[in-house]
Amino acid sequence: MTSESYDFNGKKVLILGGLGFIGSNLAIRLAQEGAEVKLVDSMLEQYGGSLSNIAGFEDLIEVNYSDIRDTHSLGYLVRGMDVIYSMAGQTSHIESMHDPFTDLDINCTSQLSILECSRKFNPEVEILYASTRQIYGRPLYLPVDEKHPIRPADVNGINKYAAEMYFKLYHEVYGLKCTSLRLTNTYGPRQYVRDDKHGFVGIFIRLALAGQPIRIFGDGKQLRDFNYVEDVVEAFVAATGNSQLHGGAYNLGHPDKHSLLEFVETLSEHANFSYEIVPFPKDRKAIDIGDYYGSFELFSSLVDWAPKVSLEEGLCRTLEYFTDHSDMYLASDG
Amino acid sequence: MTSESYDFNGKKVLILGGLGFIGSNLAIRLAQEGAEVKLVDSMLEQYGGSLSNIAGFEDLIEVNYSDIRDTHSLGYLVRGMDVIYSMAGQTSHIESMHDPFTDLDINCTSQLSILECSRKFNPEVEILYASTRQIYGRPLYLPVDEKHPIRPADVNGINKYAAEMYFKLYHEVYGLKCTSLRLTNTYGPRQYVRDDKHGFVGIFIRLALAGQPIRIFGDGKQLRDFNYVEDVVEAFVAATGNSQLHGGAYNLGHPDKHSLLEFVETLSEHANFSYEIVPFPKDRKAIDIGDYYGSFELFSSLVDWAPKVSLEEGLCRTLEYFTDHSDMYLASDG
Repeated sequence: MTSESYDFNGKKVLILGGLGFIGSNLAIRLAQEGAEVKLVDSMLEQYGGSLSNIAGFEDLIEVNYSDIRDTHSLGYLVRGMDVIYSMAGQTSHIESMHDPFTDLDINCTSQLSILECSRKFNPEVEILYASTRQIYGRPLYLPVDEKHPIRPADVNGINKYAAEMYFKLYHEVYGLKCTSLRLTNTYGPRQYVRDDKHGFVGIFIRLALAGQPIRIFGDGKQLRDFNYVEDVVEAFVAATGNSQLHGGAYNLGHPDKHSLLEFVETLSEHANFSYEIVPFPKDRKAIDIGDYYGSFELFSSLVDWAPKVSLEEGLCRTLEYFTDHSDMYLASDG
Repeated sequence: MTSESYDFNGKKVLILGGLGFIGSNLAIRLAQEGAEVKLVDSMLEQYGGSLSNIAGFEDLIEVNYSDIRDTHSLGYLVRGMDVIYSMAGQTSHIESMHDPFTDLDINCTSQLSILECSRKFNPEVEILYASTRQIYGRPLYLPVDEKHPIRPADVNGINKYAAEMYFKLYHEVYGLKCTSLRLTNTYGPRQYVRDDKHGFVGIFIRLALAGQPIRIFGDGKQLRDFNYVEDVVEAFVAATGNSQLHGGAYNLGHPDKHSLLEFVETLSEHANFSYEIVPFPKDRKAIDIGDYYGSFELFSSLVDWAPKVSLEEGLCRTLEYFTDHSDMYLASDG
């Protein structure tokens, strides 16, 4: 069903941030579809890039180490590509408040680089950008659709939205084929779980695997529409080659909503740890967005996509993956 | 009427971009109100900063040459200030498309710098930010009010909007006293008229003064709500110290709408030049926004402000100023 609209066989694809969580899952999938996959990764510490993420698939995937903020190498790398997936980013909300300039640099300046390089050296390329539901901030209504006001609650949300506006603009002014997908909380194999830098999902998974106590901030009732990474990869695959999407930005999401407490309870069915509910630390409360779940109706109306993996199944597969590969993920392996 | 709400006498104010067009007019006004005025200007070529702009007022105004992208000096400069006016910016729409990174640097990164420095070294300071109607892009309805969707039509509009979002965020998260005013086309004494880098208003004024032919793109019927710089300065003065405004962004504007052709015709009543209407060059058409005029009702409901100067009177005073000071403005004086 999924790649009816686009035949990846022999196509040249460039995945920026390709050694990271979602990028690497996408890379493996596209390599299996027969695409010539090249990854770009800067291996910035704590951004999730790791060769472990493509272990077993090294022969199918070419790795180019460089920073997408470097327009010289990027300008060379984009040439001849059929599709670029822009998956590199700083994803931590808290970190974006502590170090807003790095967030700006990576989430904003770099995306402008991708567009400028593509415009100059490969204007026919298709570009898919991994945006985020974080741009909406605290929801005014639920489910959040694409008409919801954009009110970012942290620096990360502002920078991601600025980047989205660039993609839209470069489509409108230069005709570049740009599509943005707004990801919600994504989890699954190859997720960054090494430390606390990448949000609560990775933290909870690490603690569950290590059998350490989990602390849930607030009351644990905050709702989310968690997406299993395979479903997110499927969304990028399904969106590729669909010209109806160009210039737009589309929510992903999941029909099932789960509270943070349910997320932890589901984990606890497959792992052995304790958990408790504790008050919000002040700095987190200031940028907490409360309940969030989105409508992906618009995207589904244009693309043959719907999430297939339930939280129960997804978490089970995630824990299995990390248990099987614990040597690569839970220690510091660079 | 105007400074009822805020007594500038003895207050320390910092004007970033203070040797530029609006910054210098504001500086002179605040110095006359008894404020201790310090300007910061980087003297970047073609950004409009010029000592000529404060000629005759040098004794009342302290000038500090530095770049607001330099967080070290900025972090020192913000200390002890009562009010900061953030007037520095790259304002050319066309230039933002030719060199988007510099626009990002100045309009986005620098504003984040101001906020970070204020948060760390002077969290009680009030900050007023000169934003722009450019963030709205091509209007969906007229007059444009603050509820109008934000759809920037160029890189400049995106970066200015990202900055505005930072100001709002730092108010919400850190309690900084930030107010954004969205300026429409501003004209008047001390405007940058030396070359074509700063938009059509400055270009038309220079050509009118030089007696050279003016070319109007399109059909000349595009409407604008021109503000005379004295009215804009008055808006910043009136907004200062008004806590109701903090965290918000407010349109300026003018009850009178004029077409570009009327603007040129009004100029021609006071200067001797020819003019013609020519088709849009392609790069300008792509980012042209058509008619624009805004509603400043929201701002007027919170602040005792309305523009007082008609286009007729304003242009007459502008031409007079530049004629009296032609030695300083029409040649290259650094």
